[in-house]
Amino acid sequence: MGGDRILKDRVFRVDPLPKGPYEGVAVVIDVIRATTTAGAFLEAGALDLVLAKSLDQARALRLPGEVLAGERGGLRPEGFDLGNSPQEAFRVRGRRVVMATTNGTRAVHAARTAQALLLGSLQNARAVAEKAALLGEEVTLVCAGKEGEMGLDDLYTAGVIGRRLMELGFRAEGETAHLALFLAENDPLAVLQASEAAKALDRVGLGEDVVLCAQVDVHKAVPVRTGYRDGGVVFGRG
Amino acid sequence: MGGDRILKDRVFRVDPLPKGPYEGVAVVIDVIRATTTAGAFLEAGALDLVLAKSLDQARALRLPGEVLAGERGGLRPEGFDLGNSPQEAFRVRGRRVVMATTNGTRAVHAARTAQALLLGSLQNARAVAEKAALLGEEVTLVCAGKEGEMGLDDLYTAGVIGRRLMELGFRAEGETAHLALFLAENDPLAVLQASEAAKALDRVGLGEDVVLCAQVDVHKAVPVRTGYRDGGVVFGRG
Repeated sequence: MGGDRILKDRVFRVDPLPKGPYEGVAVVIDVIRATTTAGAFLEAGALDLVLAKSLDQARALRLPGEVLAGERGGLRPEGFDLGNSPQEAFRVRGRRVVMATTNGTRAVHAARTAQALLLGSLQNARAVAEKAALLGEEVTLVCAGKEGEMGLDDLYTAGVIGRRLMELGFRAEGETAHLALFLAENDPLAVLQASEAAKALDRVGLGEDVVLCAQVDVHKAVPVRTGYRDGGVVFGRG
Repeated sequence: MGGDRILKDRVFRVDPLPKGPYEGVAVVIDVIRATTTAGAFLEAGALDLVLAKSLDQARALRLPGEVLAGERGGLRPEGFDLGNSPQEAFRVRGRRVVMATTNGTRAVHAARTAQALLLGSLQNARAVAEKAALLGEEVTLVCAGKEGEMGLDDLYTAGVIGRRLMELGFRAEGETAHLALFLAENDPLAVLQASEAAKALDRVGLGEDVVLCAQVDVHKAVPVRTGYRDGGVVFGRG
């Protein structure tokens, strides 16, 4: 970020739902909770993460000594070690984590053609923007949404990351990017709590997770795709 | 709006694009510029409006003495009297207007199953909310969008009308309603100017129209569907 930055046109876009294929840098956002928890796992010292697209695939992928994390209806499934909650992140230090997510993994697969693939959240908003800016001139913020409907929580997070990209010299392109930026003028917890994803967690007694997901710029751990393993996507700390 | 209001559950939803079918009250929003201009025509004293879905249909529908309004690429088409600009509204006093719109009319047709069908804009935001509240307990704010993409300008306007519905005892239902409400916390002109619809007008020298479309609560003329005429939808002042 020094004084010799080359003056190229740097742009970011926001997709309200994954559609792909993407070029350049893709940042997948499923802020409640998959990408928040993924970042929190790395921040807590996990060696790396394997994102699986179902509970069954995660069970099949897990090797001895690896931590198995997932959720069904927001709660830890039978036989899993952890329940995809950022509250449990401290339990993964020094371990590999196999993580089953639905909307988040679907978005990651839609974004696999991107040259670089990162996971973004509010907790790592500034760090993910800085990493994306190092990796390319074209950034797409890919909102995971929830079962094919766009998510207020993900769009808001895209706006917060987008503001940081603008501070790094990026220009917003397209209507949804501007929508996200205007949305980001509001309070994080108020917006997140109005989302369907937050209401679903609240109904199963996990409202505290929403408070954690609404924390902005609290760590610098950015999950960066490093490869694939048996159909799962591997992320390490970038 | 008196003291004996019956305490029913009154809800509003926001559709980012028309999908229908709708029940209850539908408020169609194409704020740049169709529904703003429609309201401005009635406010300026037009007898009523016939919304046609194409320039050809409008030409065919127009009877002697009626004003023909439409646009192609934002400008007045050959043989038309007016160019769908709110700036020209003063010219329709005492006349019937046949108005050709594309996105706006498509949304109106998607909403035709609604028991009541109104046209909303920022200019008549409070008036359209009050009219909708008189007509039913379930209100859908139907954003017209632009060629199948959601419009920042229409979502913002839905949020402004939604806030007024909440003051009248309505509850926001669904994620897009909350998104619109958060968006509505921003300045009207700043948001409208960031929309693709505004940029397209600006490119043909009609940026002044965007300033008019961004005026909030400046009149009380609400176009209300009163019938159909040869495939066009007729709106009178409600």
